[in-house]
Amino acid sequence: METIRVDLPRKMEVRIKILYTSICHTDLSAWKGENEAQRAYPRILGHEAVGLVESVGEGVTDLKAGDHVIPIFNGECGHCPYCTNNTTNLCQTYRVNPFKSVMENDGKCRFSTMNGEPIFHFLNTSTFTEYSVLDSTCAVKIDPNAHLKKMSLLSCCVSTGVGAAWNAANVQAGSSVAIFGMGALGLAASKGARARGASKIIGVDINPEKFDKGKEMGMTHFVNPKDSSKPVHQRIREMTSGGVDYSIECAGNVEVLREAFLSTHDGWGKTVVVGIYPTPKMLPLHPMELFDGRSITGTTFGDFKGKSQLPELAKACMNGVVNLDGFITHELPFEKINEAFQLLGDGKALRCLLHV
Amino acid sequence: METIRVDLPRKMEVRIKILYTSICHTDLSAWKGENEAQRAYPRILGHEAVGLVESVGEGVTDLKAGDHVIPIFNGECGHCPYCTNNTTNLCQTYRVNPFKSVMENDGKCRFSTMNGEPIFHFLNTSTFTEYSVLDSTCAVKIDPNAHLKKMSLLSCCVSTGVGAAWNAANVQAGSSVAIFGMGALGLAASKGARARGASKIIGVDINPEKFDKGKEMGMTHFVNPKDSSKPVHQRIREMTSGGVDYSIECAGNVEVLREAFLSTHDGWGKTVVVGIYPTPKMLPLHPMELFDGRSITGTTFGDFKGKSQLPELAKACMNGVVNLDGFITHELPFEKINEAFQLLGDGKALRCLLHV
Repeated sequence: METIRVDLPRKMEVRIKILYTSICHTDLSAWKGENEAQRAYPRILGHEAVGLVESVGEGVTDLKAGDHVIPIFNGECGHCPYCTNNTTNLCQTYRVNPFKSVMENDGKCRFSTMNGEPIFHFLNTSTFTEYSVLDSTCAVKIDPNAHLKKMSLLSCCVSTGVGAAWNAANVQAGSSVAIFGMGALGLAASKGARARGASKIIGVDINPEKFDKGKEMGMTHFVNPKDSSKPVHQRIREMTSGGVDYSIECAGNVEVLREAFLSTHDGWGKTVVVGIYPTPKMLPLHPMELFDGRSITGTTFGDFKGKSQLPELAKACMNGVVNLDGFITHELPFEKINEAFQLLGDGKALRCLLHV
Repeated sequence: METIRVDLPRKMEVRIKILYTSICHTDLSAWKGENEAQRAYPRILGHEAVGLVESVGEGVTDLKAGDHVIPIFNGECGHCPYCTNNTTNLCQTYRVNPFKSVMENDGKCRFSTMNGEPIFHFLNTSTFTEYSVLDSTCAVKIDPNAHLKKMSLLSCCVSTGVGAAWNAANVQAGSSVAIFGMGALGLAASKGARARGASKIIGVDINPEKFDKGKEMGMTHFVNPKDSSKPVHQRIREMTSGGVDYSIECAGNVEVLREAFLSTHDGWGKTVVVGIYPTPKMLPLHPMELFDGRSITGTTFGDFKGKSQLPELAKACMNGVVNLDGFITHELPFEKINEAFQLLGDGKALRCLLHV
């Protein structure tokens, strides 16, 4: 814990007072510095949070001091060729970019040490701090009556998981879904599939201790790959007369990705890839396999356009279309952030909410 | 040329008098026996044709003697879980299957030599013969007023190419499309894109002699990969402010496939793979590339459900929505089939129509 200086927001920026923040695996791997893109230093990590607008910079008209907001790592400027195209949520300027560590405006940092040394930004957000400065394109106003603590989940895991099911897979009522990896993302995908009326939701994880939680979050069947030498895709095909309609890969592993792909029904199966850790490995699919009628797609932030579509998702959560119970398994004061990192790293917490 | 015996059609089969047939690259590679699936012998090749129903087997009610029909290699039974699912055209039983060489009914051949030795079937069709026996699921009735010779093109190349643009890519008016490989398939894709109102259609081929034909068939721009050391995808991105909306791979080559994928615009680009020759090579894409918002899909028979949707396409061709001029570059009597093979192999003919 260090005292730092947080500058005033400049043109089209907002300064946010962070109320709650939580930790995602992306923070964990950035903390470990596992790849080059994550190695700016010193840097304020964190991208899941909820807070209050403290002040706004010149030109900001859609937010004002006192508004409840959630930071989003995948911003939406609203007027670039991407934002005006309704088939993508990748903004030309503010899309997720792990290499970016300064503000768009002037290429500088809004954080500095008390000695005046710059401290770098992270994923358009940097939430492990009492105050953060964000581009206004990366702060989404939410209903002040929403359950604040739970809204923090919309900054990343719930939006990504639910959106994977709703937008990327477009899960239909009565369909079957296999979800590979039962962390917060996989469980959020399960809630999304459930909300859409999927009738069979198969959770796949090598840790059977997660199955109870999976059941609580809408999953109906479970497969532990370690239970049998038979490939997982074969077991899933047997459970579903030929394969699931959709599979969602949340394990971040290319071998698992292949199993996810093959576990879908030929003719119409769709695989959604939510996250892959950097790897030199190529996609483990044969071109001929594209002719079996299976498709594969990646999703960033669940294909939600953050500024324009997240308020709707927040409303759906408030109305119980997606209930946000069960994700926050731990709460700690901000000072115990290292303990929270440990809980996530050890697989003991889904989300540990830090009270800032 | 040999005299053979062609049995009567059995249950749910039809016997067709072939009027015209043409040769596709699939016949050429089957003739060469380039891979195991193609090595049944003796076998009657050919799958693009138009003919008359000569007689029908027990239970056939949708066709009768005298009907004009086109054979389709990718049949449609109409009642299996695939045929009743509107997102696939891969029939459970009659989908394209290069390994299949006998009739579904009884696992036997309807062709035999005068000595009674069986002669194998090919791709549900076998059209290099005066008479052929097909499952009725693989014969599509067309309007008797249609231009018969040109209807032969709907058996394969035109349906596949037009369908790649209409169904698999779903090309929108005013969009841009890059087509890799300017054989009959690529040119048919161009006609399809044109019919949908694409404003920029870029043909890519290493043979610039094909560019005139491309222009005739709707293409507006051309790229010869040999003209520059700059990768094709980079050149296409420069021609289109960031990439085409759709790319269609008709060259059957995995390296070309990678260029086709990268030539689309990030955020929304879609690549349709029409044909890949058997190769041990895996898909040359990195899993992280799925997160740039580009997608890739394979298509069989242009995603048309043959029995139910081809009559509509035939009508669109009759009405000039897609005009079928320019594909049939040569016509020969059936006896000169070897000459026709040579023309295709030498790249001199798009389609050589054989008069049976």
